Amino acid sequence: MPELMSSLHQQVRRTIRRHALVPAGARVLVGLSGGSDSVALTRLLLDLAEHGEFTVAGLAHLNHQLRASAGRDESFCRQFAQRLGLPIIVEAVDVRAYAQAHALSIENAARRLRYAFLERVAADIGADRIAVGHTQDDQAETFLLKLMRGAGLAGLAGIYPRRGAVIRPLRDVTDVDLRAYLESQGEAWVEDESNDDLDNPRNRIRHRILPELDRAAGGSTHSAISRAAGLIREDGQWLDELSEERFRTLAVQTEGGLELDVRSLGETPPPVLRRVLLRAMRASAGTREVGLEHVEAVTALLSGTHGGVDVPGSRVELRGGKLVLLEQRGGRR
Amino acid sequence: MPELMSSLHQQVRRTIRRHALVPAGARVLVGLSGGSDSVALTRLLLDLAEHGEFTVAGLAHLNHQLRASAGRDESFCRQFAQRLGLPIIVEAVDVRAYAQAHALSIENAARRLRYAFLERVAADIGADRIAVGHTQDDQAETFLLKLMRGAGLAGLAGIYPRRGAVIRPLRDVTDVDLRAYLESQGEAWVEDESNDDLDNPRNRIRHRILPELDRAAGGSTHSAISRAAGLIREDGQWLDELSEERFRTLAVQTEGGLELDVRSLGETPPPVLRRVLLRAMRASAGTREVGLEHVEAVTALLSGTHGGVDVPGSRVELRGGKLVLLEQRGGRR
Repeated sequence: MPELMSSLHQQVRRTIRRHALVPAGARVLVGLSGGSDSVALTRLLLDLAEHGEFTVAGLAHLNHQLRASAGRDESFCRQFAQRLGLPIIVEAVDVRAYAQAHALSIENAARRLRYAFLERVAADIGADRIAVGHTQDDQAETFLLKLMRGAGLAGLAGIYPRRGAVIRPLRDVTDVDLRAYLESQGEAWVEDESNDDLDNPRNRIRHRILPELDRAAGGSTHSAISRAAGLIREDGQWLDELSEERFRTLAVQTEGGLELDVRSLGETPPPVLRRVLLRAMRASAGTREVGLEHVEAVTALLSGTHGGVDVPGSRVELRGGKLVLLEQRGGRR
Repeated sequence: MPELMSSLHQQVRRTIRRHALVPAGARVLVGLSGGSDSVALTRLLLDLAEHGEFTVAGLAHLNHQLRASAGRDESFCRQFAQRLGLPIIVEAVDVRAYAQAHALSIENAARRLRYAFLERVAADIGADRIAVGHTQDDQAETFLLKLMRGAGLAGLAGIYPRRGAVIRPLRDVTDVDLRAYLESQGEAWVEDESNDDLDNPRNRIRHRILPELDRAAGGSTHSAISRAAGLIREDGQWLDELSEERFRTLAVQTEGGLELDVRSLGETPPPVLRRVLLRAMRASAGTREVGLEHVEAVTALLSGTHGGVDVPGSRVELRGGKLVLLEQRGGRR
């Protein structure tokens, strides 16, 4: 640890404190891919841990077996851990088989397997927190990715500083700063050559769209975009809480289905109403996606006096002043 | 008016009805630049007016005298109005001189002069509504423009369907559809060659960034982006109303300045607190911009026990359980 902390160390510490990411005395597991983000994350957390506020309990590397370089990446991670004197837990998974079996995209399958692995390792080694390496760049990319896919506001809320045990101490720093730091330390990392594939929408955003936005703005736009995502998240979290309360007040589970009083729904402000309806539909949607188009269909129903509409997992009907959601098992998927 | 309305006519009518843009029997003034948007807007409103629900009272064209083609555009608009048998009011302004005198960008000066002109003409001819030609494309562009400039959520809220007398019936249709419609009608329009200048950030977004986003998404992203802007606006409008109420409850104007109780502020949820503080600071900021950085500075102040911070137009201090805003006349601008 340098006498004076670098501004990078200071920023990471600010993020940790501001969002209370690490309780005093916590044991932190670091998810390590071997890329610059997670290598820098490990080094920065080790430095900050010297103050004794928490411990880096170990590293966890999941070999996704997706690329020719997967073996090289695994070896790199093992050597890195050995040099730092940290325990490392490595596991290999067949992402393609899992994706096929669960009808998921490779990206989603990999994410699901990765977080399941990290949670398992954390339980095994008694870690309280799992640090992963998402940066401000990732936040800006994710925001634009979700924006262009019409994800609705929940999708635009960006990267949560913490979700359960998973923490993201690098969310306010940039890839450029992390690489400069690693270079200044003579620390190596592995490059993910699939990051250059422009058929992948995220890479197109990284290599084409964000640089164009920067040119149009005459400077970096990452921090403006991730700040917007943060504000959307803050508004959304509170509106979600309000809506959850409102849902609990309004929704009655009867034999006929989930019932909500139409007059009370009419007195609910639009941002809360939208979320109450989403919440009600999701209760019987299972893994099927409920989207804004379904909220709009039910809202249109509410402005009439009778009728019904099919949404994922249920049939929604107006019946004598009540909105009734009838769960449809084995219905259309 | 065709026997069966085109889907374009139907969409515009849906937008008008959904947002109650035009009261029954209203007289609508149309702002006409001569570009495809406003030419199509005039034609579409004339068709929809045949149902007798409202009247197109006339056209208004402001000659900005910014481009060599300004005279050509004015003549085009006069001939267009004559052919349709509509009154047209034309005025010329010196945008550059106005921008210089008021320290505004050319874009902002032109907008201010344009809306002032439209309001004046509407009053003169007794029009209740002023229709302007913003499309879904404009919404998506504005969203990205504000996003990259770090405008905060108010800036991301997109184009309001109505603000006062000004209405935007084309907000849910695309430029491509409008041009296809004009071509199918053999209707001409003037092109604004300054739209091709890539030094202008909006043009860079239109010609470079949105097409790249479309490529990455494998389809048009305009509607997803403008939908997100709509959701942000809906959430924000309601949170603004709540915050205005909260501000009126909490803020006390004393001889010493505007006072807010610190404990009550502490019990205010973050999205409302942020807006209450913005509202309080704006009260004495005049035309100076209060931004998120000032909200953050005051929020940091609230977590301490004493101290003060300078914000645009006022000094904010903690004094005995109160947050006090002291207006500073003639202070730093």
